[in-house]
Amino acid sequence: MFATHLAFTPVKWDNAALHSNRELAAEAAVAIVVNGTTQAVMMATPADLEAFGIGFLLTERLLASVDEILRLEVVDHELGIEVRFWLVEARARFLADRRRTMAGPTGCGLCGIESLEQAMRDIKPVGAGISLNAEQVYAAMASLGPAQDLNAMTHAVHAAALWHPEQGLLAICEDVGRHNALDKLVGTAIRNGLRPDHCALLLTSRISIEMIQKAAVLGTATVIAVSAPTGLAVKIAEGANITVIGVARHDGFEVFSHAERVV
Amino acid sequence: MFATHLAFTPVKWDNAALHSNRELAAEAAVAIVVNGTTQAVMMATPADLEAFGIGFLLTERLLASVDEILRLEVVDHELGIEVRFWLVEARARFLADRRRTMAGPTGCGLCGIESLEQAMRDIKPVGAGISLNAEQVYAAMASLGPAQDLNAMTHAVHAAALWHPEQGLLAICEDVGRHNALDKLVGTAIRNGLRPDHCALLLTSRISIEMIQKAAVLGTATVIAVSAPTGLAVKIAEGANITVIGVARHDGFEVFSHAERVV
Repeated sequence: MFATHLAFTPVKWDNAALHSNRELAAEAAVAIVVNGTTQAVMMATPADLEAFGIGFLLTERLLASVDEILRLEVVDHELGIEVRFWLVEARARFLADRRRTMAGPTGCGLCGIESLEQAMRDIKPVGAGISLNAEQVYAAMASLGPAQDLNAMTHAVHAAALWHPEQGLLAICEDVGRHNALDKLVGTAIRNGLRPDHCALLLTSRISIEMIQKAAVLGTATVIAVSAPTGLAVKIAEGANITVIGVARHDGFEVFSHAERVV
Repeated sequence: MFATHLAFTPVKWDNAALHSNRELAAEAAVAIVVNGTTQAVMMATPADLEAFGIGFLLTERLLASVDEILRLEVVDHELGIEVRFWLVEARARFLADRRRTMAGPTGCGLCGIESLEQAMRDIKPVGAGISLNAEQVYAAMASLGPAQDLNAMTHAVHAAALWHPEQGLLAICEDVGRHNALDKLVGTAIRNGLRPDHCALLLTSRISIEMIQKAAVLGTATVIAVSAPTGLAVKIAEGANITVIGVARHDGFEVFSHAERVV
């Protein structure tokens, strides 16, 4: 029912006004529902929604393991989409209790965080990960563009991908929201039995603190992005044993943390 | 206490590894607190936080008017910043009631929306606004870059600005989050007595539905952005009487809704 993009004919000005055809990125309100109770509603690209739900629950630490999921279904409504989870009793009770003590709604990537201290929560450091040389960093980022199918049409969506030094791009997820794209990748990696610890995480977006928090849950030790990281992202990455490579272009890049993995 | 940016020396690879200096965008956990109760916590650039708080409460419809604000203070903590509001009794009671019935935390720009129907809430259409010719669209967007002081240093923050056909750039706000940048602009416009209905809203980011919802609260009838809008943003803009101009570059742009304002 929900398309990820739709054809549109804007009026194009190009010194003179012309009509041009363009695909617009579609977005839908997506509710994450656990045992009958809504945990969150987000605007997202309506694709890979099972993976999105799984990744969201894991990276927001609402779920400790996919083994806690009994059943999962995606239900379309007129105005949006529900991703419905049924979780094991103990976990469902934990979420219901947590919800009762919730301080209120929160912003991007920090859903459910009710205090400043929780927002700065500790992150479990990732393992050794992999080392990359400069040529591999260039190759990884060069592989991204041709695989961004939805962005090629719409020029309005972000991507998150896993890149393996020998096997290349193992998975790529696109979404109007950069947090959503990464959550979808986390869910996809788990569903497909990928090994994120043997890969680099590629991002088309900026690296803010939540992206590092989610990367740590994913277990990838190397994050490479087109844009620059924020200060807090670098600080958190230092503590989480994550290598942050930013401003990655075809002819250069910058290493902001744990440079020992770039050889 | 909180800086908006910090000097950093990444390892730069540019065929050979070099050290380079760079300013990182700083972000801090910012809590919006109303009459002693936290309404939301977001990661934001720690600048213009009074304007941010005002804009956030208005565009999220937690406040009907700035006249409801009795007092406002910004308080730094070790781990983040509180923007503390004291509101008139009736409004404070409304927010406390609303908070008790809240379904849970939500994502970007849709804070406090608990159902899919609310997420698609109706928007009050804006007024006549202004008309622009193609040269003015180019001039508006050209004025943006030189005024993005924080982005010039960090390459990691978004901007939202008001541009007047005769007076040029009236206000510009930058933030690591695009929703935050727009909220700051809304607060700044109100505090400085600007007339957004006589201006175009300029955005460095994509135009998603929440950006149009916030533009409608701001009262600006023309939104111009570097990237493309999403499908839902165009649909909502049609209903809200808002002209959406996207993919605005130095040599062309595309009009996605209410093209009658581009002459």
